[in-house]
Amino acid sequence: AHRRLSPDHQHIRFNPLKDEWVLVSPHRMKRPWKGQVEKPQETDVPRFDPNNPLCPGATRPNGKVNPDYEKTFVFDNDFPALLEEGPPPPDSDNPLFQAAPAYGTCKVMCFHPWSDVTLPIMSHDDVHSVIDKWAEINVELGKKYDWVQIFENKGAIMGCSNPHPHCQVWASSFLPNEPAVKDRTQKAYYNKYGNPMLVDYVKQECQKKNEHWLWLVPYWAVWPYETMLLPKRHVLRIEDLNDEERNALADIMKKLLTKYDNMFETSFPYSMGWHGAPTGKRMNEDNKHWQLHALYYPPLLRSATVKKFMVGYEMLAQAQRDLTAEQAAEKLRLNIKS
Amino acid sequence: AHRRLSPDHQHIRFNPLKDEWVLVSPHRMKRPWKGQVEKPQETDVPRFDPNNPLCPGATRPNGKVNPDYEKTFVFDNDFPALLEEGPPPPDSDNPLFQAAPAYGTCKVMCFHPWSDVTLPIMSHDDVHSVIDKWAEINVELGKKYDWVQIFENKGAIMGCSNPHPHCQVWASSFLPNEPAVKDRTQKAYYNKYGNPMLVDYVKQECQKKNEHWLWLVPYWAVWPYETMLLPKRHVLRIEDLNDEERNALADIMKKLLTKYDNMFETSFPYSMGWHGAPTGKRMNEDNKHWQLHALYYPPLLRSATVKKFMVGYEMLAQAQRDLTAEQAAEKLRLNIKS
Ligand SMILES: O=P(O)(O)O[C@H]1O[C@H](CO)[C@@H](O)[C@H](O)[C@H]1O
Ligand SMILES: O=P(O)(O)O[C@H]1O[C@H](CO)[C@@H](O)[C@H](O)[C@H]1O
Repeated sequence: AHRRLSPDHQHIRFNPLKDEWVLVSPHRMKRPWKGQVEKPQETDVPRFDPNNPLCPGATRPNGKVNPDYEKTFVFDNDFPALLEEGPPPPDSDNPLFQAAPAYGTCKVMCFHPWSDVTLPIMSHDDVHSVIDKWAEINVELGKKYDWVQIFENKGAIMGCSNPHPHCQVWASSFLPNEPAVKDRTQKAYYNKYGNPMLVDYVKQECQKKNEHWLWLVPYWAVWPYETMLLPKRHVLRIEDLNDEERNALADIMKKLLTKYDNMFETSFPYSMGWHGAPTGKRMNEDNKHWQLHALYYPPLLRSATVKKFMVGYEMLAQAQRDLTAEQAAEKLRLNIKS
Repeated sequence: AHRRLSPDHQHIRFNPLKDEWVLVSPHRMKRPWKGQVEKPQETDVPRFDPNNPLCPGATRPNGKVNPDYEKTFVFDNDFPALLEEGPPPPDSDNPLFQAAPAYGTCKVMCFHPWSDVTLPIMSHDDVHSVIDKWAEINVELGKKYDWVQIFENKGAIMGCSNPHPHCQVWASSFLPNEPAVKDRTQKAYYNKYGNPMLVDYVKQECQKKNEHWLWLVPYWAVWPYETMLLPKRHVLRIEDLNDEERNALADIMKKLLTKYDNMFETSFPYSMGWHGAPTGKRMNEDNKHWQLHALYYPPLLRSATVKKFMVGYEMLAQAQRDLTAEQAAEKLRLNIKS
């Protein structure tokens, strides 16, 4: 039934994972843009720069020297937002002034020894190594921490200060807001319908992208070209992917990211990350309502230099998008004959 | 008790209005910034530009000519995200594909006939006229719509495409996510404690800024220099402010915005907006749990050109801030001797 939604008329759509709505105003695409344009992405990145602290053999701000790594390389973030210890905040019985302890660790993970590559142009094997390393880190940090957030900020427009291909991993003693809400909504759905929400969603979206993975612009997408990657099988955590699924994931990631790059002929900026069942002391709780998925949030709207601003109305009232999710999916599919 | 929170140690804090947490990592302020720097604000804006569609006497994209207005001027947004009518989306009984009708109207409101002024440098009387117009619009659009969102995007960095001082008003047939959550949390607090949450909050924050208004960096602030303006009296909607309170509001707005401008010696960018009790068919419901307040969300972190990026971790997990709310309040107070 949802396919019959008019691409020309405004409406609101519900995001069952986040329990919130998005305002869709497709007629707004006709509006001319006179606002800020962004700097184009850097294109002349040298393969090796001895002063870049992410390069093999380079010296980091804390004086440590990187090994001559050949695949991935993981190290402690020199300016971590989460530290492993520290005094807890004082107790308070005032409902308006509540603080709680927060512990964690922050890692940086280089994808490749070269600075001038990105995931879509890395070899299939090298992308597979990245996936394996993600799985490994999730297991390792998941032993101690309730939530392991793997995320990549790509492009200066997304606050990324280093062009070398890398992601970050922030693990915390607490379940952050986003996964806490998703834990609640997925559990409620499971209790009501007897299936994991996102496993049902996979069944109902017909795009068949590859045997093991579904890649789509979710019905409730907020960012213009937001996408989601889902295994077709019910999988709780990234480490539960078997080798065939990891291979297929490397394939589909390379394809998706190439489509992104080609759409606006730029190294497409985004923030992406993985969400799977919680870990740490929640590891052995009942987590069958969870389904592993990756989220891509790219900021661009019209071209390599014009982004969607999520500002006044979005910050104070509700996310608003211009083109519909179906139009975005169409545009992403049409741009490369696959 | 909350005053004893260490300014040096990480913790999470609870936002009772939004029912979510923020990660506070004050030690991160020591981190050097090598990422994107923003263009400085435009400073050579001409007072009058016949080609600027917001100026008195100018012709707008739809061919209409602006009057020679002398105070404020309100007109229909030429590219509205919300239209007054249109076909509703088809019904669906699938919980994963839910859409609903959305109607509304979008207005633009110029603050002043001159393009080269901003609220802090406008006269007290002119700011008072803006406040009166806000109240008037809230009454007018509130007759038909459940939510009237008054908001200002200031600065190119906040997606504002026109330097002429102005704000927007988007009114909708539905209660958007942010106010829907705040309606729920404020109601629950009222039912539990017998007072409006934010009226209690006003009593517990001791900064005495002026007789009628409290201006503060909320305990749970997310943006580095986020602030909130609250009337000391229990007030449901902006139109309920009496003339003395409007005068005092003009005073405190001018002061607050001047402090902002002085802090980084720039015309400080932000998105701001008003939240008060719902309107339309919710006008005559029991809304006594609501308290009117204005929110300022400025993006800058370190200087006029270095902003806080709310990206990977923030989008996928939870908002994270560097300096504490108390440090931000201190910095804003210290910068001008008041
Ligand atoms: O003021 P404009 O140009 O209509 O639009 C601006 O504010 C809107 C409301 O916050 C956003 O949806 C747009 O992305 C932004 O560019
Ligand atoms: O990668 P960095 O420089 O540590 O930091 C970047 O990502 C973080 C996590 O999303 C954000 O909190 C910062 O604002 C952003 O600049």
